[in-house]
Amino acid sequence: MAIAYPHFFVSEKAKSKNSNPSLIVSPTQSPAILSQDELKKIAAYKAVEFVESGMVLGLGTGSTAKHAVDRIAELLNIGKLKNIVGIPTSSITHEQAVKLGIPLSDLNTHPIVDLAIDGADEVDPQMNLVKGRGGSLLREKMVEAASKKFIVIVDESKLVSHLGGTGLAMPVEIVPFCWEFTLKRLEMLFIEAGCVGKLRVIGESGEPCVTDNGNYIIDLYFKSDMGDLKAASDAILRLAGVVEHGMFLDMATTVIVAGKLGVSVTNK
Amino acid sequence: MAIAYPHFFVSEKAKSKNSNPSLIVSPTQSPAILSQDELKKIAAYKAVEFVESGMVLGLGTGSTAKHAVDRIAELLNIGKLKNIVGIPTSSITHEQAVKLGIPLSDLNTHPIVDLAIDGADEVDPQMNLVKGRGGSLLREKMVEAASKKFIVIVDESKLVSHLGGTGLAMPVEIVPFCWEFTLKRLEMLFIEAGCVGKLRVIGESGEPCVTDNGNYIIDLYFKSDMGDLKAASDAILRLAGVVEHGMFLDMATTVIVAGKLGVSVTNK
Repeated sequence: MAIAYPHFFVSEKAKSKNSNPSLIVSPTQSPAILSQDELKKIAAYKAVEFVESGMVLGLGTGSTAKHAVDRIAELLNIGKLKNIVGIPTSSITHEQAVKLGIPLSDLNTHPIVDLAIDGADEVDPQMNLVKGRGGSLLREKMVEAASKKFIVIVDESKLVSHLGGTGLAMPVEIVPFCWEFTLKRLEMLFIEAGCVGKLRVIGESGEPCVTDNGNYIIDLYFKSDMGDLKAASDAILRLAGVVEHGMFLDMATTVIVAGKLGVSVTNK
Repeated sequence: MAIAYPHFFVSEKAKSKNSNPSLIVSPTQSPAILSQDELKKIAAYKAVEFVESGMVLGLGTGSTAKHAVDRIAELLNIGKLKNIVGIPTSSITHEQAVKLGIPLSDLNTHPIVDLAIDGADEVDPQMNLVKGRGGSLLREKMVEAASKKFIVIVDESKLVSHLGGTGLAMPVEIVPFCWEFTLKRLEMLFIEAGCVGKLRVIGESGEPCVTDNGNYIIDLYFKSDMGDLKAASDAILRLAGVVEHGMFLDMATTVIVAGKLGVSVTNK
């Protein structure tokens, strides 16, 4: 089902057993008091309502997913959740979960994940995503592709009419070997969409960002719609030198959007 | 054009300017005296006849390609070739070429390669290849995809009716993260072809082989034909965790086969 934004609503689920009443917004609440981080937290807490004891959980990465991991730990600590096994999608989330005492495993031991919760950088009306601006797109995609259910949590600024529509990056993880060459080949694939690629670097150092897998990230920027997303995905993956890209097509099963006017929960 | 093996013939080109008369076989020569390595050398020397001064050359990797690189250096040293720039496809070939004094560059500086010469592990009648048993499939594919012409050099033992037909490995380069999981997903893709995957290890140490790019290799073995090769290729590449695979589809422009009865040169 397509996302019916911007008609946000407060889901009935908001009052279920894992909910935190202080975080539930309603259309009557003053919009001025909600920061972007508060909206992220609302979406994250809402997603955790879908977590049940005994589940194998994919733990996402990024500022929104971080709130979900915190909330899962909180519910474990107070005994509202039991027997959770977390599969972290990055070394950062691994560290966070270890600190919080969430029992962890990996895909080798738990190849089937019950539910993954993660943020996204863009969500289109068909629930396709851009992810990976945080740099861990490959591990996220591995875990979320192995998940029976995948809940995406975003604030309303992430909703786009088409992927690339924020004008921000669509990341591609590539091997470091001859990265300039791979960058040029990526740009050439989408020359008609005015694609420009940039190597992701650390701050002003000019040093390349290195992923958890020892690779580089090329951020692609598009002036116009890249067209058929599945064709674009295959074309990128066919380039030797590309490891993975940040488009998550047909993977999300639920999208939770927190906006100033409320929370929407949309299932596929 | 499909390869018309096993009707080998001695090409007229065998007597062109770069040829080495001692290496030319004819159907009348006794087959008993030719070892597999001699056949590899014949195919390699034959390929080097297509090299012209001023070319940017992709330098392959493996026991057959090594002979071609040796021969190119020999012709440079005696002045029969000039102004060659080599693009090595592995760190091993890089070392070999440096020792031999072949001027080298990379794809960043020379994104268009005039001619690549490389061996293959399998060649099917449509000139599709399996490569990478030597472990450098990713760099080989990057260089050879950038080449205007790509000559494949093999002895006749590499000819198969379908890829996977030797019963030997079809390698897939994957990220080390959760490699057992990726191995299982690869096997599941080709469950109907009786696919079994094995992590490539170093000798009897059990330690994983690590590629030039810091990745692992899964060797896939097939009991039967894997079906539509392009569909198989896309399915493999769509698995998050896969970096590249060893099928080189629709890339070779010439195949040179050295057999006990002669040398065949087949152009696409």
